[in-house]
Amino acid sequence: MSKLSDYLPPDFKPFVSSDAYKQKQRRLISEKEQSQSVVFLHSVSEVFDALNLHDGMTFSFHHHLRNGDKVIGLIGEEVHRRGLKDMTFAASSLFPNHASLVDLIKEGNVSGIIANYANGPVAKAISMGLLKKPFIMDTHGGRARAIESGDLMIDVAFIASPAVDKAGNGTGRFGPSACGTLGYAIPDLHYAKKVVLISDYQMDHIEEAELNHRYVDYVVMVDKIGDSEGIVSGTTKVTRDPVGRKIARDTVMVLDKLGLIKEGFSMQTGAGGISLAVVEYVKDLMIRQNIRARFASGGITGQYVLMHEQGLVETLYDVQCFDLRAAKSYRENRRHVAISASEYGNPFEPSPIVDQLDFVVLGATEIDLNFNVNVTTDSLGEIIGGSGGHADTAHGAKVTVVVTNLLKARLPIIKEHVTTLTTPGSDIDILVTERGIAVNPIRIDLMNQLKQKGIQIVKIEDLMQLSYQIAGVPKTLSHEKTIIGYVRYRDGSIIDVLYKKM
Amino acid sequence: MSKLSDYLPPDFKPFVSSDAYKQKQRRLISEKEQSQSVVFLHSVSEVFDALNLHDGMTFSFHHHLRNGDKVIGLIGEEVHRRGLKDMTFAASSLFPNHASLVDLIKEGNVSGIIANYANGPVAKAISMGLLKKPFIMDTHGGRARAIESGDLMIDVAFIASPAVDKAGNGTGRFGPSACGTLGYAIPDLHYAKKVVLISDYQMDHIEEAELNHRYVDYVVMVDKIGDSEGIVSGTTKVTRDPVGRKIARDTVMVLDKLGLIKEGFSMQTGAGGISLAVVEYVKDLMIRQNIRARFASGGITGQYVLMHEQGLVETLYDVQCFDLRAAKSYRENRRHVAISASEYGNPFEPSPIVDQLDFVVLGATEIDLNFNVNVTTDSLGEIIGGSGGHADTAHGAKVTVVVTNLLKARLPIIKEHVTTLTTPGSDIDILVTERGIAVNPIRIDLMNQLKQKGIQIVKIEDLMQLSYQIAGVPKTLSHEKTIIGYVRYRDGSIIDVLYKKM
Repeated sequence: MSKLSDYLPPDFKPFVSSDAYKQKQRRLISEKEQSQSVVFLHSVSEVFDALNLHDGMTFSFHHHLRNGDKVIGLIGEEVHRRGLKDMTFAASSLFPNHASLVDLIKEGNVSGIIANYANGPVAKAISMGLLKKPFIMDTHGGRARAIESGDLMIDVAFIASPAVDKAGNGTGRFGPSACGTLGYAIPDLHYAKKVVLISDYQMDHIEEAELNHRYVDYVVMVDKIGDSEGIVSGTTKVTRDPVGRKIARDTVMVLDKLGLIKEGFSMQTGAGGISLAVVEYVKDLMIRQNIRARFASGGITGQYVLMHEQGLVETLYDVQCFDLRAAKSYRENRRHVAISASEYGNPFEPSPIVDQLDFVVLGATEIDLNFNVNVTTDSLGEIIGGSGGHADTAHGAKVTVVVTNLLKARLPIIKEHVTTLTTPGSDIDILVTERGIAVNPIRIDLMNQLKQKGIQIVKIEDLMQLSYQIAGVPKTLSHEKTIIGYVRYRDGSIIDVLYKKM
Repeated sequence: MSKLSDYLPPDFKPFVSSDAYKQKQRRLISEKEQSQSVVFLHSVSEVFDALNLHDGMTFSFHHHLRNGDKVIGLIGEEVHRRGLKDMTFAASSLFPNHASLVDLIKEGNVSGIIANYANGPVAKAISMGLLKKPFIMDTHGGRARAIESGDLMIDVAFIASPAVDKAGNGTGRFGPSACGTLGYAIPDLHYAKKVVLISDYQMDHIEEAELNHRYVDYVVMVDKIGDSEGIVSGTTKVTRDPVGRKIARDTVMVLDKLGLIKEGFSMQTGAGGISLAVVEYVKDLMIRQNIRARFASGGITGQYVLMHEQGLVETLYDVQCFDLRAAKSYRENRRHVAISASEYGNPFEPSPIVDQLDFVVLGATEIDLNFNVNVTTDSLGEIIGGSGGHADTAHGAKVTVVVTNLLKARLPIIKEHVTTLTTPGSDIDILVTERGIAVNPIRIDLMNQLKQKGIQIVKIEDLMQLSYQIAGVPKTLSHEKTIIGYVRYRDGSIIDVLYKKM
């Protein structure tokens, strides 16, 4: 019998055996796959050696490991050890566990900080005026805009990645520090000059990875990127306080009367106790009236996961998983969809999720007679939070409701003027308190609708006076006039300044 | 009161209003986002004008719309209209509805065809010797290898995309021609010189899109890319034939005796009636013995979806959805994972899914005394199919079982020599027929294991003789010795030639 090779043109090779190819592999890099291959290293020190680092650079970080993040600390330690100076740390948020940064600020290793939210010792140090450069506070969508527009140029993004694979892809789904979606890291991944994934868990292959290796320059394996205690709370708790529950009930009543809870609607709420109670009441109403929502967005909680799994909410658009049930759902439910910070709230995105919201329910540290909201500082001007997605969703949603008790810790929440402006009153439509519901006068349409339905509306001024009668008129703050930072609105303009704390 | 702008450094702009940004947007292209932006066009003719086309080019296509695909026809029509000559059409598979290609072959517009599977008028025309250049038949994994290694250079990939968004991302999840995963299109997307998505359904934004806009040059909107009747069968049918069911039962018995159906195992089966019955019996066994599988792979069917949703199969690795239930599941279940042809079966991939299979159950058109399998031609040498994933999974799986009736249409399936070699016998371990179970002598380990468990093994020669007794000895084919094509093994070598049909 003639051999196969007798029949073949010279450039065709005959079959040898089914694993002959294992000796000689070859694979081209396509024209569109230009990025150099990923380099794997085994310590932060090695990657500092590999990167061409110098004073004055900008490093970025995400906050998906929240109060359990160890990556900012690891990088800070190495910056300190090497005596790098005048670095800017651009973290999507800073938490109490990032306390080690305070020393770096004091010693001049870190002279600039940019964040959407800051709480804990670093925030306190900044408020005390220790940071050399002005502190910049973005919104979640605004940070994506800043990165993508070039306002925030990142030299190196150090991205905590709960799992990585051999090709250099990363995911938040697996590993001991699994935290769910990684939405806030995506602009950094796409736009930083160099991208380093920091991980403590390696897999063979990750499919549908959030962090695509084509953007990754280095992967660094370390012992531990996170402390599971601090990453996600095991459960989020609905308020049992009768006052909070009344506010939640009234909020849902108002939303219902406005016709916002109807087939195919969309919603976002925070993870505060009242907001969680709002979701409970919305859910009851949906079941009673056989209504299904098109989507819920935001930091997704276990409550929404249950609603999704019960068929009440079609899609969960999730930039950040708020609890363990959400992280688990993201591993299992296809319509629990990871979105980037840009897809979530970047004002330059053609149709970000926030613009598709029918309503959002938000909190407030202070709200003033113009419905301006402060969630950035306390009434003494100390930084205790930040916009996060507050200004993004307030602007995007058709109706924005702020829920709050009239007093917190015996202090009136309604002020003549907010101490710090986070979200402009023009984007806040309704305030629901336990003593009455106020509607922003620029929303005459909503006011008329509610009046027609027999809902009693009060003036925000009257609510303020009521709280003054209970708690007294708060003293006006005569703050020291040293500017220590700026509140940057989502479009890149400055909406307010931050002062040094007295 | 002093204005905010009084406090701002000159390069900071004060807040104006929350939608002031809408007047002037800006967005940089990151260094890693080098690809030019996607151009949207509204006819195939426009994209032919835009591309710098000439005779002799290679166009590629995927087969996810199967017998409902209209894209190959649309492109062929335009090639014909413009009188382009000597084009090569590299389609992952060709179906009966691609009949219009026959005229293009006859008129010299198309002189080369490359496919992993071909059935219908085009296959017949090729078998008749009408194609000018040799027909190349790859495996599913081998096609990915060919593209990524440069053996198959694609000038333009025309990718049918059931939905596209405004940025130029594409998905198979949505739209009137939704077909599920698009695994066979991914190598084309990444490696073709130019990529054109052809779609009939536009959405605002697609999250987690299979087809990333960064690889896309053009999107062309047309009236209809597919005919839903032909895209996916509504249901896949388990055989009710008692002979088929006996084969399936015996197969599962053998797999069980070999200890392959144990906690954490992995499997693949085809969509033929016997294979589907195998899955039924595997499922029964799993429930009885409380066993969970790590994954099932392949073209995923509704059967596997049910098993996944019942918690019996942890992950579905799906390169192509075989029915409507699978397409729906892919929209809903996170662990119903889309994989590319490379991730599925590319021999150059470090750990393709096929290499992780504990067992695969496959069919055969012919199997010979060396356990070589033919699923490419009938016994007269006419092309009626092709490897698809046959040779890929047979090589990768720890145990490969071929299931078949001894006779089909009164013709013996076991031959002395297969007419065409698709999958080498060295990768086929066990043959299960209604008249006995044969084990490949190179797998003495399996033979001993089964004998120890009291399973009767027969020689494949005896099974052949038995079928000869029933149906007579088949005449030897003295085929005309004109080569019209080559069967290319997954590693790029030629495993057999295709002859012109007598």
